[in-house]
Amino acid sequence: MAVIDLNSDMGEGFGVYSLGDDEAMLGIVTSANIACGFHAGDPLVMAKTLAAAQANGVGVGAHPSFLDLWGFGRRPIMGERPEDVEKHLIYQIGALQALAHANGQKLQHVKTHGSLGNLANEDASLARAVARAIRAVDPGLVFVVMPGLEMERAGEAENLRLAREIYADRAYADNGNLVSRKLPGAVIHDADDAATRVLRMVEDGEIVTAGGGRLKVKADTVCVHGDTHGAVEMARHIRARLEGAGIEVRPFGEWLA
Amino acid sequence: MAVIDLNSDMGEGFGVYSLGDDEAMLGIVTSANIACGFHAGDPLVMAKTLAAAQANGVGVGAHPSFLDLWGFGRRPIMGERPEDVEKHLIYQIGALQALAHANGQKLQHVKTHGSLGNLANEDASLARAVARAIRAVDPGLVFVVMPGLEMERAGEAENLRLAREIYADRAYADNGNLVSRKLPGAVIHDADDAATRVLRMVEDGEIVTAGGGRLKVKADTVCVHGDTHGAVEMARHIRARLEGAGIEVRPFGEWLA
Amino acid sequence: MAVIDLNSDMGEGFGVYSLGDDEAMLGIVTSANIACGFHAGDPLVMAKTLAAAQANGVGVGAHPSFLDLWGFGRRPIMGERPEDVEKHLIYQIGALQALAHANGQKLQHVKTHGSLGNLANEDASLARAVARAIRAVDPGLVFVVMPGLEMERAGEAENLRLAREIYADRAYADNGNLVSRKLPGAVIHDADDAATRVLRMVEDGEIVTAGGGRLKVKADTVCVHGDTHGAVEMARHIRARLEGAGIEVRPFGEWLA
Amino acid sequence: MAVIDLNSDMGEGFGVYSLGDDEAMLGIVTSANIACGFHAGDPLVMAKTLAAAQANGVGVGAHPSFLDLWGFGRRPIMGERPEDVEKHLIYQIGALQALAHANGQKLQHVKTHGSLGNLANEDASLARAVARAIRAVDPGLVFVVMPGLEMERAGEAENLRLAREIYADRAYADNGNLVSRKLPGAVIHDADDAATRVLRMVEDGEIVTAGGGRLKVKADTVCVHGDTHGAVEMARHIRARLEGAGIEVRPFGEWLA
Repeated sequence: MAVIDLNSDMGEGFGVYSLGDDEAMLGIVTSANIACGFHAGDPLVMAKTLAAAQANGVGVGAHPSFLDLWGFGRRPIMGERPEDVEKHLIYQIGALQALAHANGQKLQHVKTHGSLGNLANEDASLARAVARAIRAVDPGLVFVVMPGLEMERAGEAENLRLAREIYADRAYADNGNLVSRKLPGAVIHDADDAATRVLRMVEDGEIVTAGGGRLKVKADTVCVHGDTHGAVEMARHIRARLEGAGIEVRPFGEWLA
Repeated sequence: MAVIDLNSDMGEGFGVYSLGDDEAMLGIVTSANIACGFHAGDPLVMAKTLAAAQANGVGVGAHPSFLDLWGFGRRPIMGERPEDVEKHLIYQIGALQALAHANGQKLQHVKTHGSLGNLANEDASLARAVARAIRAVDPGLVFVVMPGLEMERAGEAENLRLAREIYADRAYADNGNLVSRKLPGAVIHDADDAATRVLRMVEDGEIVTAGGGRLKVKADTVCVHGDTHGAVEMARHIRARLEGAGIEVRPFGEWLA
Repeated sequence: MAVIDLNSDMGEGFGVYSLGDDEAMLGIVTSANIACGFHAGDPLVMAKTLAAAQANGVGVGAHPSFLDLWGFGRRPIMGERPEDVEKHLIYQIGALQALAHANGQKLQHVKTHGSLGNLANEDASLARAVARAIRAVDPGLVFVVMPGLEMERAGEAENLRLAREIYADRAYADNGNLVSRKLPGAVIHDADDAATRVLRMVEDGEIVTAGGGRLKVKADTVCVHGDTHGAVEMARHIRARLEGAGIEVRPFGEWLA
Repeated sequence: MAVIDLNSDMGEGFGVYSLGDDEAMLGIVTSANIACGFHAGDPLVMAKTLAAAQANGVGVGAHPSFLDLWGFGRRPIMGERPEDVEKHLIYQIGALQALAHANGQKLQHVKTHGSLGNLANEDASLARAVARAIRAVDPGLVFVVMPGLEMERAGEAENLRLAREIYADRAYADNGNLVSRKLPGAVIHDADDAATRVLRMVEDGEIVTAGGGRLKVKADTVCVHGDTHGAVEMARHIRARLEGAGIEVRPFGEWLA
């Protein structure tokens, strides 16, 4: 029987601010990427999100980022030395790890956030620094990566367990990267179209690219979003279509080799 | 043979900023209280301080604080809920713990910084939250406390190993607390006077208070400072006087029961 | 014909975060208290809020605070020197003033936020520092104050124009201060009850206190909130009741002596 | 009689941190570029630096930056929209302007800091946003620019008064830009070599480039540094050599057309 994980970013509040509908998403996804205080999140939000994930049987992971609260980690910050980024990530993962440990939980995974992820997917030495940081905190942590890009190679080189990730609502270029949001057709807005694409990726191991080409892919987890009402509905629909097709939806920490 | 530890705050830089002469102090003290990014410190400063302490055989501990970079953790922030403070501390200790682990080190201790420490020494529920945070991260961590105040009681209640601390350059009130810096005679500026006081506390187990009274104390560690040239000299002199009196100066993690 | 102003806090977002329904409130109130980046707000949010207020004919003022984004300026930070607070306020008011000037607007007023306001209302020297900061930036700025407390006295001593403020949804103690939110009955939740109280304060110049006493008050502006759906509705109802009673609702900058 | 200004960055402390020897530099330079709280500086540091400049007869200007305290404004942050940068600069200049006004001073100039300056010198729309921000706050402010680059053109287009700046201790490329610090010979370390170069630029209106070419330049101000002992000595020597050659050293605000 086929099995897949659904992951979503969570715990993106800060102080009085909140963002996204974590409560709804925790009833849909099986893995939560929790912000660690550098682009979003604070110790209270992190602890609350960990506890809510636990109550829902959702696997928890760190979602570290550049230090950039105002820019929400989305601003490309150039020229950071890989060895410095490595320490920034160890700090963030370690902070969440301790909060999880205090709550009787174990971290399942790490997934980079925002422009740090974008840059590391194109820069081998940055990607390697990310993988080293994960390994340094706990070599048993799963590294969530996009297939075919630098972080996947770095994770393999560091002997990390990898969860290969596909995006439900984004078009792919022929090289396996996402089509820029600035281009037409980059984002899929129809829930059923997105679900159909996901099923094809999961069942056939194949992505149809924006150019009409085909990429082979073995997906372990599907990234869905929860920041708008429509996004939550799309996530719910994708889960329903997956389960309707007889595919089990479960945290990858429970079944990944 | 008597044994004592010398501790000092370190790693108090941030970004381009630096503070204190860590290099000099690492040749004098045996335990370093490392800032964790909330009142000072950042991942790079923390990693650099950990490595330097390691090279000098100095024990390393977390020096967590209120979230207050601008105020350097010295501003009394009232009304924080103990359960929130607990999570703020777990975050900070966990972040440093991961950086230490990545560098092949183990944290020896935790000591609160600034106004968090002052408030917790007078507030039993805040003190208990500090002790719970330490226990939650690692029950083997030593808790550095001032004898006779609330954090000592909280550490005992949580079954933590305690390192009782005395201040080399501060006058004591009859209740065992420090005399406020605003009062005359609160700070001892002469290195030899300070050293003589420390020897009396260590050898006789006795503090002579500002009012002329005597407090019984069993000191495990002496707090010294490194933020001015005179402070470094005083620390060096205290160590020399201790060793001259046949007292061994060694990290408490190595000998504390 | 009687005239009154309605004021509300606005521009409380930061980066990706937003807070409150500014759009709805700008159709109801006549004065906007705009956060200045220390407890909330950033240059983009401030500029956007100024422009939206302008489009709605709403008077604009600075809503400065302690430097405490995480705590939203609500945490009592003790021991700040009045002369330091004065500079923190000049910085914030000046930043908003420049953005207003760039948009062809002039600041109408200043109102302190959160725990800075609470502390200054009980501390004459802090209150005086607030008034000096306002005067230093522009002696023509209106100072929004609660009647009977320290900031009113400080504003008088600095010869500032004062807008005396009443709260629509809060119970008053006999000394003219608000009843603590922690006590039962401190917050009025029924929109019509609140409106009736406001009318009494405006028409009769009288506040009935929680203890049944009567305070004389000459109110220039009524503080309403916009952070929940119910709050917006209450604000709208209060305005309707005021206008229904023949009271003109207009920015105090246009009519205050 | 020839006249020139000497400028230096100042007020780069934050909270407990300090940076550079402002006191020494205020006895040497004639214009101070004051950090505005985004990459360094805070309201207290700003007010103190303004007062110290006033006491020394030194002209004061804003030194705005990207919002990046940890990176000290040196990290290239890509993709910021020019209209957003404009508002960030208005905020910073306005904050300093208000503190200056409160102290009876008038701002003389604006000079961009760090990577914001580097990016704006190569990007016409970003440069124009900087110039618009200055104009929006006060069209009488002098804009300090490097000759031949985008900010000079933007300043001309916005009809701002320009102070053209040369660097005492940096080699120039043939296009008028600075040689990257990463290349050999980029930084001049000998105080007398630097002074000789400055004299040539000021007296002959000519820069000899790293490649041996000659650039025509009309310099109004010379940038010197104060962050090391050697830097202060170099600045002092350059001033002495200029005055020895009969060139008057005076704030450009007093004589610029």
